[in-house]
Amino acid sequence: MSFGFEISAQDGGARRGRLVTAHGPAETPAFMPVGTAGTVKAMLPDQVRATGAEIVLGNTYHLMLRPGAERVAKLGGLHKFMDWPGPILTDSGGFQVMSLGQLRKLTDKGVTFRSHIDGTQYELTPERSIEIQRLLDADISMVLDECTTWPVDRSEAAKSLKLSMAWAARSKDAFWARPGYALFGIVQGSVFDGLRAESAKELVEIGFDGYAVGGLAVGEGQAEMFRVLDVTVPILPAARPRYLMGVGRPEDILGAVDRGIDMFDCVLPTRMGRTGKAFTRRGEVNMRNARHTEDPRPIEEGCLCPACRRFSRAYLNHLFKAGEMLGPMLLTWHNLQHYQDLMRGIRGAIEAGAWAAFKAEREAAYQAGDIPTLGA
Amino acid sequence: MSFGFEISAQDGGARRGRLVTAHGPAETPAFMPVGTAGTVKAMLPDQVRATGAEIVLGNTYHLMLRPGAERVAKLGGLHKFMDWPGPILTDSGGFQVMSLGQLRKLTDKGVTFRSHIDGTQYELTPERSIEIQRLLDADISMVLDECTTWPVDRSEAAKSLKLSMAWAARSKDAFWARPGYALFGIVQGSVFDGLRAESAKELVEIGFDGYAVGGLAVGEGQAEMFRVLDVTVPILPAARPRYLMGVGRPEDILGAVDRGIDMFDCVLPTRMGRTGKAFTRRGEVNMRNARHTEDPRPIEEGCLCPACRRFSRAYLNHLFKAGEMLGPMLLTWHNLQHYQDLMRGIRGAIEAGAWAAFKAEREAAYQAGDIPTLGA
Repeated sequence: MSFGFEISAQDGGARRGRLVTAHGPAETPAFMPVGTAGTVKAMLPDQVRATGAEIVLGNTYHLMLRPGAERVAKLGGLHKFMDWPGPILTDSGGFQVMSLGQLRKLTDKGVTFRSHIDGTQYELTPERSIEIQRLLDADISMVLDECTTWPVDRSEAAKSLKLSMAWAARSKDAFWARPGYALFGIVQGSVFDGLRAESAKELVEIGFDGYAVGGLAVGEGQAEMFRVLDVTVPILPAARPRYLMGVGRPEDILGAVDRGIDMFDCVLPTRMGRTGKAFTRRGEVNMRNARHTEDPRPIEEGCLCPACRRFSRAYLNHLFKAGEMLGPMLLTWHNLQHYQDLMRGIRGAIEAGAWAAFKAEREAAYQAGDIPTLGA
Repeated sequence: MSFGFEISAQDGGARRGRLVTAHGPAETPAFMPVGTAGTVKAMLPDQVRATGAEIVLGNTYHLMLRPGAERVAKLGGLHKFMDWPGPILTDSGGFQVMSLGQLRKLTDKGVTFRSHIDGTQYELTPERSIEIQRLLDADISMVLDECTTWPVDRSEAAKSLKLSMAWAARSKDAFWARPGYALFGIVQGSVFDGLRAESAKELVEIGFDGYAVGGLAVGEGQAEMFRVLDVTVPILPAARPRYLMGVGRPEDILGAVDRGIDMFDCVLPTRMGRTGKAFTRRGEVNMRNARHTEDPRPIEEGCLCPACRRFSRAYLNHLFKAGEMLGPMLLTWHNLQHYQDLMRGIRGAIEAGAWAAFKAEREAAYQAGDIPTLGA
């Protein structure tokens, strides 16, 4: 099976498509739950699948440190290891090396660092990153890039970009092209339009199976993020999938789909679920809040996740107060369900030519605020 | 539906029976997973049910403190609150008041204590314990008793027993008899045969729907525990269910079933699952052990739990090393599956008149030790 991307409908800037990978298809726009260390936290793979997710993300940095890429390969690859038979995208490890790795030393060749777990020294080069992702058997690999800090001045960003583009070319050289497997480039350049354009053009020249926009959702704000997309996306080839890395809140996803983005990943639904925060059509609701203590209603009427079908807000409130694991388990499920329901809604609206109305309706709803407290 | 206990087969001392409660039946010998604070830790109710469990235990002490019995009642009772439509047994709270409550003051009337959570003062009397269990809507309530410390001298144990028997009578007076709902008495008396016999006789005189043996598995050892059962069980009415509280390891359960016990509860399968220890037919196996790091085999061949059907020992080892919640989730499931499979095996063997052979085979297997390490 060759790696493919088919666009079946377009409505304004929004695209309705389908990724075809070595481990099956994934409908787009797609949200990829994050399975950092070979598990989407607090979820069984069947449960992740039940929410509607078709593709998940694995983190190269975490997996190279523990259990190690060679070990995963020996055990049959990441799909088998974590029991996820569908498509997997892995990042390159660059972002986590910068945020988690210790005693980092950056050279043109790559980066050396010490593990945040046990201090072991590692080297990550574009070639090694690609090799690790091959060992993991990722359907979609990402080029190694340098992630600039935020904020950053233009000359720093330009210098970093130059390195990232050289690494992108080396990543492509190191990648073994095989049917159904893809390598994506990553556009960098911080919030500087000229740099973003330059980066996008260079990547297109090298030629990738898909293009990611990186270095956003780092503190620049939604307006800046959308502006960068407005500058960047038009330069990317229309026929290739576009992936906005690490984004985001539902409202961010709506705005980015509107600007032609096809793929997303973000830790928010899982991370916020673990701390008691639920995504709903009417915005975010903290289940730890005392106003839920005697509320017999579900988090959200009509939601098909087990948290909403089987339990009350009062029960969820109790679980989080009591520190019971079932609380994070149920809210993670609910939040992933919310994200996948959103993506299903987005895909249906684009197919139906009703994208603008759908987007406006959802954006308004997210601002509405939670249902009134019972008896208040 | 009236509370009932039907014995369908007997083989030696072992009995094959069925509890019939307001919330449905439960086959015996039965193992009741512990759902302390309204949740069997790390498990969804459907998953608990999928292991074969038909009845679960709730802890009065934990639930009276948080979320509170009146609140649970207001929300429709414990079955609805925790989404467990089947039978629930609640303990009386006495044991946890002694082990967790602070600044305890014991009088003939009852016990006052401060919550280990927030210091709030509570009073627990036989009457209040029964009221709480009624508010929770427990199918089977337990009398409030005083749990003696271990070890204890005979005069202390006798004094404590006297109080427990007075409380048992008051508990019965406070209990509202309703169809399908039961109240069990609890035999105390530590390891003193005379006291155990006296306690059993007094309880039978008061008259209960079932009889528990309490105050065991507190450090006295398996031989002493079995000896106490040998003294106690013959005094209990054959037609009523017998419940050995807080027991135990699989070998304890085999020995107790052999002595005529019908019901068990224990935190071991769930608690040990959370720390990485798996119960198998060949004994306990610590999944954190380095010898599993590259082992592609399941915890136990033939086990139908998802940990064994879908994942390798290597993966489970990784999850526990990485501190991922999926590790406790999967091992809790596996351990509960092991216990329920054991109970199913016990019930089948009694029905088939093959109890002695089954017991001997299982006891030998538990001593066998884990399968040899791969490549060792």
